[in-house]
Amino acid sequence: MFLTRTEYDRGVNTFSPEGRLFQVEYAIEAIKLGSTAIGLKTKEGVVLAVEKRVTSPLLEPSSVEKIMEIDEHIGCAMSGLIADARTLVEHARVETQNHRFSYGEPMTVESTTQALCDLALRFGEGDEESMSRPFGVSLLIAGHDENGPSLYHTDPSGTFWQCNAKAIGSGSEGADSSLQEQYNKDLTLLEAETIALSILKQVMEEKVTPNNVDIAKVAPTYHLYSPSEVEAVIARL
Amino acid sequence: MFLTRTEYDRGVNTFSPEGRLFQVEYAIEAIKLGSTAIGLKTKEGVVLAVEKRVTSPLLEPSSVEKIMEIDEHIGCAMSGLIADARTLVEHARVETQNHRFSYGEPMTVESTTQALCDLALRFGEGDEESMSRPFGVSLLIAGHDENGPSLYHTDPSGTFWQCNAKAIGSGSEGADSSLQEQYNKDLTLLEAETIALSILKQVMEEKVTPNNVDIAKVAPTYHLYSPSEVEAVIARL
Amino acid sequence: MFLTRTEYDRGVNTFSPEGRLFQVEYAIEAIKLGSTAIGLKTKEGVVLAVEKRVTSPLLEPSSVEKIMEIDEHIGCAMSGLIADARTLVEHARVETQNHRFSYGEPMTVESTTQALCDLALRFGEGDEESMSRPFGVSLLIAGHDENGPSLYHTDPSGTFWQCNAKAIGSGSEGADSSLQEQYNKDLTLLEAETIALSILKQVMEEKVTPNNVDIAKVAPTYHLYSPSEVEAVIARL
Amino acid sequence: MFLTRTEYDRGVNTFSPEGRLFQVEYAIEAIKLGSTAIGLKTKEGVVLAVEKRVTSPLLEPSSVEKIMEIDEHIGCAMSGLIADARTLVEHARVETQNHRFSYGEPMTVESTTQALCDLALRFGEGDEESMSRPFGVSLLIAGHDENGPSLYHTDPSGTFWQCNAKAIGSGSEGADSSLQEQYNKDLTLLEAETIALSILKQVMEEKVTPNNVDIAKVAPTYHLYSPSEVEAVIARL
Amino acid sequence: MFLTRTEYDRGVNTFSPEGRLFQVEYAIEAIKLGSTAIGLKTKEGVVLAVEKRVTSPLLEPSSVEKIMEIDEHIGCAMSGLIADARTLVEHARVETQNHRFSYGEPMTVESTTQALCDLALRFGEGDEESMSRPFGVSLLIAGHDENGPSLYHTDPSGTFWQCNAKAIGSGSEGADSSLQEQYNKDLTLLEAETIALSILKQVMEEKVTPNNVDIAKVAPTYHLYSPSEVEAVIARL
Amino acid sequence: MFLTRTEYDRGVNTFSPEGRLFQVEYAIEAIKLGSTAIGLKTKEGVVLAVEKRVTSPLLEPSSVEKIMEIDEHIGCAMSGLIADARTLVEHARVETQNHRFSYGEPMTVESTTQALCDLALRFGEGDEESMSRPFGVSLLIAGHDENGPSLYHTDPSGTFWQCNAKAIGSGSEGADSSLQEQYNKDLTLLEAETIALSILKQVMEEKVTPNNVDIAKVAPTYHLYSPSEVEAVIARL
Amino acid sequence: MFLTRTEYDRGVNTFSPEGRLFQVEYAIEAIKLGSTAIGLKTKEGVVLAVEKRVTSPLLEPSSVEKIMEIDEHIGCAMSGLIADARTLVEHARVETQNHRFSYGEPMTVESTTQALCDLALRFGEGDEESMSRPFGVSLLIAGHDENGPSLYHTDPSGTFWQCNAKAIGSGSEGADSSLQEQYNKDLTLLEAETIALSILKQVMEEKVTPNNVDIAKVAPTYHLYSPSEVEAVIARL
Repeated sequence: MFLTRTEYDRGVNTFSPEGRLFQVEYAIEAIKLGSTAIGLKTKEGVVLAVEKRVTSPLLEPSSVEKIMEIDEHIGCAMSGLIADARTLVEHARVETQNHRFSYGEPMTVESTTQALCDLALRFGEGDEESMSRPFGVSLLIAGHDENGPSLYHTDPSGTFWQCNAKAIGSGSEGADSSLQEQYNKDLTLLEAETIALSILKQVMEEKVTPNNVDIAKVAPTYHLYSPSEVEAVIARL
Repeated sequence: MFLTRTEYDRGVNTFSPEGRLFQVEYAIEAIKLGSTAIGLKTKEGVVLAVEKRVTSPLLEPSSVEKIMEIDEHIGCAMSGLIADARTLVEHARVETQNHRFSYGEPMTVESTTQALCDLALRFGEGDEESMSRPFGVSLLIAGHDENGPSLYHTDPSGTFWQCNAKAIGSGSEGADSSLQEQYNKDLTLLEAETIALSILKQVMEEKVTPNNVDIAKVAPTYHLYSPSEVEAVIARL
Repeated sequence: MFLTRTEYDRGVNTFSPEGRLFQVEYAIEAIKLGSTAIGLKTKEGVVLAVEKRVTSPLLEPSSVEKIMEIDEHIGCAMSGLIADARTLVEHARVETQNHRFSYGEPMTVESTTQALCDLALRFGEGDEESMSRPFGVSLLIAGHDENGPSLYHTDPSGTFWQCNAKAIGSGSEGADSSLQEQYNKDLTLLEAETIALSILKQVMEEKVTPNNVDIAKVAPTYHLYSPSEVEAVIARL
Repeated sequence: MFLTRTEYDRGVNTFSPEGRLFQVEYAIEAIKLGSTAIGLKTKEGVVLAVEKRVTSPLLEPSSVEKIMEIDEHIGCAMSGLIADARTLVEHARVETQNHRFSYGEPMTVESTTQALCDLALRFGEGDEESMSRPFGVSLLIAGHDENGPSLYHTDPSGTFWQCNAKAIGSGSEGADSSLQEQYNKDLTLLEAETIALSILKQVMEEKVTPNNVDIAKVAPTYHLYSPSEVEAVIARL
Repeated sequence: MFLTRTEYDRGVNTFSPEGRLFQVEYAIEAIKLGSTAIGLKTKEGVVLAVEKRVTSPLLEPSSVEKIMEIDEHIGCAMSGLIADARTLVEHARVETQNHRFSYGEPMTVESTTQALCDLALRFGEGDEESMSRPFGVSLLIAGHDENGPSLYHTDPSGTFWQCNAKAIGSGSEGADSSLQEQYNKDLTLLEAETIALSILKQVMEEKVTPNNVDIAKVAPTYHLYSPSEVEAVIARL
Repeated sequence: MFLTRTEYDRGVNTFSPEGRLFQVEYAIEAIKLGSTAIGLKTKEGVVLAVEKRVTSPLLEPSSVEKIMEIDEHIGCAMSGLIADARTLVEHARVETQNHRFSYGEPMTVESTTQALCDLALRFGEGDEESMSRPFGVSLLIAGHDENGPSLYHTDPSGTFWQCNAKAIGSGSEGADSSLQEQYNKDLTLLEAETIALSILKQVMEEKVTPNNVDIAKVAPTYHLYSPSEVEAVIARL
Repeated sequence: MFLTRTEYDRGVNTFSPEGRLFQVEYAIEAIKLGSTAIGLKTKEGVVLAVEKRVTSPLLEPSSVEKIMEIDEHIGCAMSGLIADARTLVEHARVETQNHRFSYGEPMTVESTTQALCDLALRFGEGDEESMSRPFGVSLLIAGHDENGPSLYHTDPSGTFWQCNAKAIGSGSEGADSSLQEQYNKDLTLLEAETIALSILKQVMEEKVTPNNVDIAKVAPTYHLYSPSEVEAVIARL
């Protein structure tokens, strides 16, 4: 009585008879092809760790940016199409700067996440900043505001959730299981760093080095670890 | 003589030979995939209760928002695509604030509901705020104004109805039957809370906890129950 | 030599080889799925009566509005997609208010009907207020102006006719036959109420109650009957 | 070597290999489904007569308008989609009023006809007033200006011709033959009325009554006949 | 290896694998269905003659305009879709008037022709004045400026050529052969009139009368012949 | 695994799996149907020669313009769709005039060529001046600026190359071979004229006459040869 | 269960079920058809070397520009569609000039690269400067700023990477292997020139001459080598 699913899956904004939006689901698939990223929230702050996939020894590892600063109190890790992520991050940076300018105080982490998702949701609408397809990227947004540290997860549908810990990308399934086993609310930031990297190590095919992972924390301000700081965490594994 | 229904169901705004708009009907299907939400109107006020589907223990339950405040005298529960619901709620918040600013009094619940549905109806029209597909979400809007408490139900076609009690989402069929049996106009707010949660409990697969349900009331102002308040209702079952 | 009709019926604004516009014809089908509405013009004024289809005992009957006021001297009954009807009525309300403001007198019933149909005709044109598909609704517009009482019937093609009596919706065929038998120009308003409701009773599957029908008159101002007034008409059958 | 005609006939503005525009030809078919209208030019003025197709005894015959005034010196009869005709007539009324306002004199009949056809020609162009399909209507435009009486015939392609006599609509073929036999330039207006109505009588399936035909003249100003004036013409047959 | 030609011929602006634009070629076909028009340039001025196809004795022959004045020093004959030609001529009239207003002198014939072709070329471009399909008309533009008399031929592709003599329309093939035999540069205007009409007579199916042909000259100003002037030329054949 | 090429060749701006843009390639085919044009650069200046294809003895040879002046120091020869070439040339004329006005000096030949190609590249982009398909024309642009004489070749993709000598159009293959044999950098302008015309003669089907070829030079200013100057070159063959 | 890949590969902005954007992947194929380009970063500066493919001896080698200056401290080598590359480079030139004007200092190499990629990413969005398809070009951007020398690689998806050495185009696979073998961070600029050209020589089918390769360096300002400078490097091989 219905067409097979294949007939509905090319219209960017068309419901299938079961009420599904296939282009969004396919964009979510794009993220499963991406590198793994992990976030953990502790009382002291939030840790982000990502796999970098440096495909050639001639590539400058520091130029493979998978963790980016949004504002001094917010950073994010990404998995999926990096160019799409840059558009979202750039949008968030403008929003947070405008907020500081207009209100004289930092934007909250939730409002920043909402602003990002508003843009992601409006794909296919034809207005100036939006895209004609879903953004093929998932973000882990780490921040610290008047409510303390927080970690958000966004997906291509423009939905977001607040999490204590979360993994995204090709290794997310295994990493999420490990996180559920090892996570508790009383972790120190130091322990969180170690857990994040040890889980990343499990899902990566290569040996972990300061060249192929990045670590950042927001505690309470954003800080991207230098190679030697990363080396120190590796040494603790 | 006619094509089968499948030929008409991808045009967002095309009538089938029988006069049906399939994309709207499919969006209504999206809601049948959603979590269950229940509303009951009493003389003292309106109660809303929702299932939260916290898929991972690492998810922050309070960030899975399925009941939201629109204005201090209006709240709503939702089922379907959460990101779509947020766009509608955000629109309603701006409308109610504008109304307060322009007229110095709160917007009535019916006008607020109408404003939401005007936006929902205009999908596919290409103007700035509207979407290029139907909004895949149903709302239960609870409010209190000069006419006393009221409960509205909206669907993706932009139609709305005033109800005494109503369930939406995947468990709505069973929940609606139970509501018809148990509802009467003389319920106290306390009884309404108990009925709402006991029906929700029947249709949920998991055990009910303060983590996986939310309850709110508008009596006469919006109030989202704290975990301990939810716990108290659970204790009464 | 020609394609079968099915090849022409999805373009909203495409003529078939015989010169037909199928999307408009299909929208007219949408009305045949709708609830029945009846209008009768007498020298004393116009009566409108509609079936309400209250699908659940928990639905507030007064919120199923199928008769609406346009201006104090004009009301209308509707059949088809209610959300579409609301857009048309809202447009007509603005037009009649603007007319009063600009000219200091009420808009005539015919001009109001023409304004509604202008909007209905322009579907698919892409301008701001028009829709990208035909409006799936038929209206019976009852009014009273300097030319005395009048009743208009509109359809999705944007065409309108002045009538003495008319039925629309799923029971319109039988109801129209009955109207032709029972109508004469010298009916009193009281007789017209009785005829309208007795014909509605014939075509409805359920027992007629103040909950599942609405009656209104324009004589010379719009008045929607209260449940007890409806009860009084039922009592006369 | 070519596709069959059916492959070219849905694009509103696409030439077939033989250089034909099928959507315009199909719109012309729409007129062959319409009621018959007849126009005759005499030295004293122009007569228009139309069949009204009053489908129900409850329809107000005077509201089936198939002859309309454009300006006090111009009227028109129509066949095809009435709602389309109203858009064209409304456009022409604005143009003639603007002309009077700007130049202090009436617009000529030819200029008025040209203005109507300019709008008809521009279908599918996407500008504000034009339609996305051809106008499915033919007009007989009767007028009187400094060049004396004149009669124009327009079709959906935006082309127009000046005629001495012309029939349009479903009975046009037979009516045109009769007109060629009976027309001469020295007819009086009285004779023209009689010829128009007698030919209309031949092509109508029903008996001619003041209820199902309309007659108008422009001699030199527009005048729509009252039922008793129509009765008088019928009596002369 | 390629698709057959039929696959490329409906896109208004799509090249086929051989580099052809079929919609333009089909528009050129539209002209082969049109009535024949002939132009001849002499040292004294240019003569235009057209067949008028008065399809009914009730049609006013003078209203079948196939020769039109653009400015007092430029006229044109047309074959193909008359409504399209009117749009082009109207555009050219505005351009020549603007030129006179801006520069205080008449626009040259070549510039006028170029302006017409610029509009014809831009079909499918979506800007305000252009059409969404090629203009289905060919023009013979006769003019007289500081370079003396000139005759231009335009086609639907927006290309134009200067000619000494040229025929367009359904009889153009035979007429062009006759023109090549009979034309020389030293013809008088009187001889040119006779040749134009005698060739038109050969390709027309009916007897030539002042009712079914039009003749005009630009020598040096535009003049459309009266019926008696046409009669005089016929008499010379 | 891939579709055949025919599936990708109608989208004006769609890559095939091998990374090809077929509509551009088909536009390049349009040029292979065009008349042959030849350009040669010498130290004294640049020579352009074109075949004119005067299809009828009644055509004014001088109106078949295949060599046009862009500015006093730049001219161009064209092959393909002449109406498209006119749009490009008109654009270049405006650009060079603006440059003179803004900077008080002539635009360089390369900048002029770049400006032309910018417009050609942007087909399908929907902005005001660009076309919705590739320009079906190739140009040879001859100029003289502060860097001395130069010759550019452009194609429908918006790419350009600087050449010493180049042939385009239907005879370009044979002509290019001959140019490679006969060209050297020390040719005089006189020798270049002779070579250009002798090669054109080889690839033309007809006898070369002042009527069916055009020659121009930029040395250092643009000059189109008069018929007698062309005759003189023919005489030297 | 899924369609074959061929069903998703023509929509410029449509995800396939696996989350892939085929039009971007096909644009990347366009680059594999392009000429080879190589970049190497040393502490002294960056070297770029490209194959020029001078297809005819009559082509001016210096006009085949595959290395272009963006600003005095930034240059780039390209492979793929040259006309697309010009648009990107022109955009970057305006951006760097605007930056100098606004801030009084040169734009950093990374910001310039980001600006280029922002434009590349937005294909299919319909705004003014963007294209309706992906840009079919890859760039190697060499620059020198306050962070010293840097080399960036961009692809049609709008992604960029910082590299120590990189090859693009048809010979990139072999060239990249050779680069990995021969590259180390302590190379002198002189050694880098030699390595770049010797690797280019391996992948080119023809003998290397100053006519068919270009070399440039940014050390710290952009300099394109003259034919004699190229000859000197060839001599060192």
